[in-house]
Amino acid sequence: MKSECRRMLFLLGLSLLGATFSLAQTQAPEHPLEGLKSQEYWSVHEVLQATGKTDADTYVMSVLLHEPPKEKVLAWKAGDRIPREADVVLMRKGLVTEVRMDLTARKVESWKEVKGAQGPIFESELFEMGELAKNDPRMQQGFAKRGIRDMVTVQCVALPFGYFALPEMEGHRILFGGCSDTHGAFLGWGRSIEGLYFEMDAVEKKVLKVIDQEVIPVPQSPINFEEAPAKPRTGTTPIEIAQPQGPAFQMKSGEVSWQNWHFRVRLDPRVGPVLNLVRLEDGGRQRSVMYEGSMSELYVPYMDPAESWATRVFIDAGEFFPGGVLRTMREGVDCPSNAEYIDGLSPNEHGIPVIRPRQACLFETVSGNPAWRHFEQEQVWGRPSRTLVLRTAAVIGNYDYLLDWRFEQDGSIRVAVGATGIIETKGVKAKSAAEHGMSMSGGAEAADDEFGHFVGDNTVGVNHDHFFSFRLDLDVDGSNNTFEPHRLKQRQLPAATHRKSIWVAEPSVAKTEREAMMDIQLEHPSMWMFVNPNVHGPLGYPTGYEIMPGTTAASLLDPDDGPQRVGAFSAHQLWVTPYRAEELYAGGVYPTASKGGDGLAVWTQANRPIENTDIVAWYTMGFHHVPRAEDWPVMPVMWHDFVIRPFDFFPRNPALNLPLAP
Amino acid sequence: MKSECRRMLFLLGLSLLGATFSLAQTQAPEHPLEGLKSQEYWSVHEVLQATGKTDADTYVMSVLLHEPPKEKVLAWKAGDRIPREADVVLMRKGLVTEVRMDLTARKVESWKEVKGAQGPIFESELFEMGELAKNDPRMQQGFAKRGIRDMVTVQCVALPFGYFALPEMEGHRILFGGCSDTHGAFLGWGRSIEGLYFEMDAVEKKVLKVIDQEVIPVPQSPINFEEAPAKPRTGTTPIEIAQPQGPAFQMKSGEVSWQNWHFRVRLDPRVGPVLNLVRLEDGGRQRSVMYEGSMSELYVPYMDPAESWATRVFIDAGEFFPGGVLRTMREGVDCPSNAEYIDGLSPNEHGIPVIRPRQACLFETVSGNPAWRHFEQEQVWGRPSRTLVLRTAAVIGNYDYLLDWRFEQDGSIRVAVGATGIIETKGVKAKSAAEHGMSMSGGAEAADDEFGHFVGDNTVGVNHDHFFSFRLDLDVDGSNNTFEPHRLKQRQLPAATHRKSIWVAEPSVAKTEREAMMDIQLEHPSMWMFVNPNVHGPLGYPTGYEIMPGTTAASLLDPDDGPQRVGAFSAHQLWVTPYRAEELYAGGVYPTASKGGDGLAVWTQANRPIENTDIVAWYTMGFHHVPRAEDWPVMPVMWHDFVIRPFDFFPRNPALNLPLAP
Repeated sequence: MKSECRRMLFLLGLSLLGATFSLAQTQAPEHPLEGLKSQEYWSVHEVLQATGKTDADTYVMSVLLHEPPKEKVLAWKAGDRIPREADVVLMRKGLVTEVRMDLTARKVESWKEVKGAQGPIFESELFEMGELAKNDPRMQQGFAKRGIRDMVTVQCVALPFGYFALPEMEGHRILFGGCSDTHGAFLGWGRSIEGLYFEMDAVEKKVLKVIDQEVIPVPQSPINFEEAPAKPRTGTTPIEIAQPQGPAFQMKSGEVSWQNWHFRVRLDPRVGPVLNLVRLEDGGRQRSVMYEGSMSELYVPYMDPAESWATRVFIDAGEFFPGGVLRTMREGVDCPSNAEYIDGLSPNEHGIPVIRPRQACLFETVSGNPAWRHFEQEQVWGRPSRTLVLRTAAVIGNYDYLLDWRFEQDGSIRVAVGATGIIETKGVKAKSAAEHGMSMSGGAEAADDEFGHFVGDNTVGVNHDHFFSFRLDLDVDGSNNTFEPHRLKQRQLPAATHRKSIWVAEPSVAKTEREAMMDIQLEHPSMWMFVNPNVHGPLGYPTGYEIMPGTTAASLLDPDDGPQRVGAFSAHQLWVTPYRAEELYAGGVYPTASKGGDGLAVWTQANRPIENTDIVAWYTMGFHHVPRAEDWPVMPVMWHDFVIRPFDFFPRNPALNLPLAP
Repeated sequence: MKSECRRMLFLLGLSLLGATFSLAQTQAPEHPLEGLKSQEYWSVHEVLQATGKTDADTYVMSVLLHEPPKEKVLAWKAGDRIPREADVVLMRKGLVTEVRMDLTARKVESWKEVKGAQGPIFESELFEMGELAKNDPRMQQGFAKRGIRDMVTVQCVALPFGYFALPEMEGHRILFGGCSDTHGAFLGWGRSIEGLYFEMDAVEKKVLKVIDQEVIPVPQSPINFEEAPAKPRTGTTPIEIAQPQGPAFQMKSGEVSWQNWHFRVRLDPRVGPVLNLVRLEDGGRQRSVMYEGSMSELYVPYMDPAESWATRVFIDAGEFFPGGVLRTMREGVDCPSNAEYIDGLSPNEHGIPVIRPRQACLFETVSGNPAWRHFEQEQVWGRPSRTLVLRTAAVIGNYDYLLDWRFEQDGSIRVAVGATGIIETKGVKAKSAAEHGMSMSGGAEAADDEFGHFVGDNTVGVNHDHFFSFRLDLDVDGSNNTFEPHRLKQRQLPAATHRKSIWVAEPSVAKTEREAMMDIQLEHPSMWMFVNPNVHGPLGYPTGYEIMPGTTAASLLDPDDGPQRVGAFSAHQLWVTPYRAEELYAGGVYPTASKGGDGLAVWTQANRPIENTDIVAWYTMGFHHVPRAEDWPVMPVMWHDFVIRPFDFFPRNPALNLPLAP
């Protein structure tokens, strides 16, 4: 009987696992903010072909939904005509062209060449250029010099890099790269052939320069993490999570409803999940919290001055090949067993739509934490909580990032990034810090681990940063909002008082962008309130939402550093701009080899007014990473997060009415 | 059939719920660090009575396990004699006496009067003094003046308060208090009778002073949170968490084993859960991580200069009545359905042991998060994770704190505090910020919400801080450790380099306590490493653990403020001291009305050496709290945490060998 039950539960579990929402269905869109449909991608492809202006050398850098004007979306009702446009970016022999296309009329609206911009690296380019470099006689010589003769296991990779004012960069598509030898390993990570690099022109398809320095043996530190454990850890007993009646959320055409939350989600081929029209139901009304939220850019600068390493300053979302940062997730590993998966659709480098399985998952989780509780009169009063999680996994080469939007029952949203995957390592001569005779304890001479940390034999994990810019178009109870930093300041008290000092919260209005650049300082704390000065709650305060930072970091780089100009959003933890439909990417539209002429730090130089108008918050999450042995050969997930929470949005704790079962 | 299954699962669930570990059993102790047993409390009681030195006026402030010397505990093996001693603190008419007792020999070892110390407030004292004050004619006059005639619903509370150099405080037990009128409410919170306070001598049992100021009506803002929702939120479907084979942890005589973790837990009647001998199994060896870990003190200063509010500067663990900060938890609310509960034992104010149900819970949780993952070659490699949580709930009057020690499979421990319960509010004349005509937007004149924020009609949540001091006696691979801050500093690069700047991690050794006082600064980041300089990993680095701070705060108060001298641990986020058995409480042993002559800030003035010796880390977690409407009438749980994680403790990611099922 018992075993029968278990089997039934198991079967039930299986049938739940099978349920997958698809954002990729071929039907016509049902909302102006729905992601592009399969047929719309085909329209783009056909219209482009019909122009006669594309050929085999044309790459499609991106095909993105061009959102209708915000006021039109806000006024739109089911049954209204759905305006559909696409922004297409082409790259042909290094030349970038922007095309706006009307998808309903199937026609080109505008066609504009963009001077001085570089497209991202394309997947086929990556391999083609890698092969070209690998076969360059100077490189071959370098391999021979290192005793590497078996070319089957040598992989070369050409990557975009920051703007370093090299003469050859002006007007050219310059890539920089190196090779690894995967002999004996499943993956190339940790197997780099150090001291041998190349610079190339990807349009001319020519290796410009080979840099052949010191010979350093390819490290042999174990990287095959799937083979590492002799046997799995024992002693666990099964934990089963079951939702026999199915999930408590609904999802249709990208619209998600769960408890009092309503929002739209689409999977954007550039930045991944885009949330729209995030609303909270309150007394029968749907009240606006956020018009749009997404991760706008990633910036990962490495901290080794060597020629092959100083160039590693990745602007991940903008610099890498089309199809976007998202990758397929794995059932049973990436999301819990009660998760539902969302398939995605994004174009390949020819603009052809590709269906991509399990690009996102949506699940409810019962953490065992109460939503609120109080003990009094020998009793506990309280309610258990559950959370709705929208998760995606962004993968950029070696690194994997889990991106969570976690909706809480108390009206708050926790935005979390879990960093995992494989750290970038450098092969070095010394086997370990011990062999080198010094290190951590601060010796005088330069050591092989001066710019990182040994994680394996002859293997140094190189120090680096991760910065994520989140674009949060908060619309609290409407579009016109004001950013109010509340600064907590010590106040000395008169001698007659019992105490010498207290602190008081001093509210202020950030009138311009410069006044809204916020840096976290423990000795000068502040609260970041986004209020609607035109809507007041019953207690007389404007309704508001607060952005509460989590553990984060600020860039330590010289602001004049080429790459730092592009990743300049890492200089402050919060920025606020007036809403501009075209300002979407904190590192600019074309971060590849950019001189930093576009992006958050540039726009805000105008110091535009931001009071009682449509504003956008940009939160920078960051962390410095000195690798440790435990990060090798694959890194345990490290989470960082921040919270967007109601502050006088509700008249009282909105979770009072939760049921007693989670 | 289906319904039968459900019923069976339900019954199964019930039978699991019934399982409760008890730390309160009457058997003899089986380990030197086990909490005191029932019979041992009775021994204390009987031996005290036999001395003839106690009487009806004697209160037992605390009966705590006096831990054997650390070296003896470390050398102890099962079967060895178990030394048992207790530290007893008595208070009689304001006089504090410390008694050390040998529990095996049932005899007093030492008897010492402590001059100038005050005991915590005792429960019966709280009520007795409250009643005394309530019946004082001046108070009665005050009630009448306010139109309060029904004394049945008036509750007065006398509380300890910080040292303010009042002449009447010298050598006296001075309490300060006020009253509330619970007419129409279940609880007194939010119903304070403002403008009417008393100061009293709790030994003389005399009201010294009645302060009768402005008449302010008792606020009527809804506080009955259990009656608030008209009907529970609908639309949820059940989520069931089942561990049909039971939990995967073992617990016996306070020793917990789970996966590769081993540790001891006891519930201390003063500070709550104390972890001991935290070890990780690694290749058949049990390696030491932490000898002892506990929350040492809480400090909650309020930020209103009014006479009745400036005194609210609570040192919660030390100032409140015996029995400790822990309170019973509720199944289905405080812990998930697969949790096992631990009963506790602590003395009442007469030293009599009281069995206290569900003082802690222990559970495994499957969050749905991977332990690690990597996407490569169109596949995801990874492992799902689970976590072991030890949870307790500390309740100090209005506030509830969930205290979590979360053991992760990657060797890290996340220490988390969830703040919930009821904020302290002040009754004010103005109904709301609207009525007052100004507030948040920064008017010129003082408003009723100058020192807080309206959360209900005539109800202002008063601004305050929460600081928690965690005492972490890390013993990484042995007792002698060194604290190594690694400071990340910008380095300018030579002109020939592609980049202008990088950062480098500069390790250093903190040789003395002063060098180990760490303040979080984003522009000067540092990593806090605790290494064993005598044990090196295979890569040549000393084995180590890192304390990674989470979101936290530093005190903004004047260091010369009386209460701030006692809560001075809030001035830095990390402190390191040499191990001293008697240094347990960051705010001192007797924080009540303390002048600040004991505690972390005082000990460290000696600036003792801390290199390569037995050291203790003290982490301060804190947050400033400006209440919002959503925090009323009961506050959604707000979590803060920090992480203790291996750094070169293992030769590689220790979670590689996890099974594919969580």
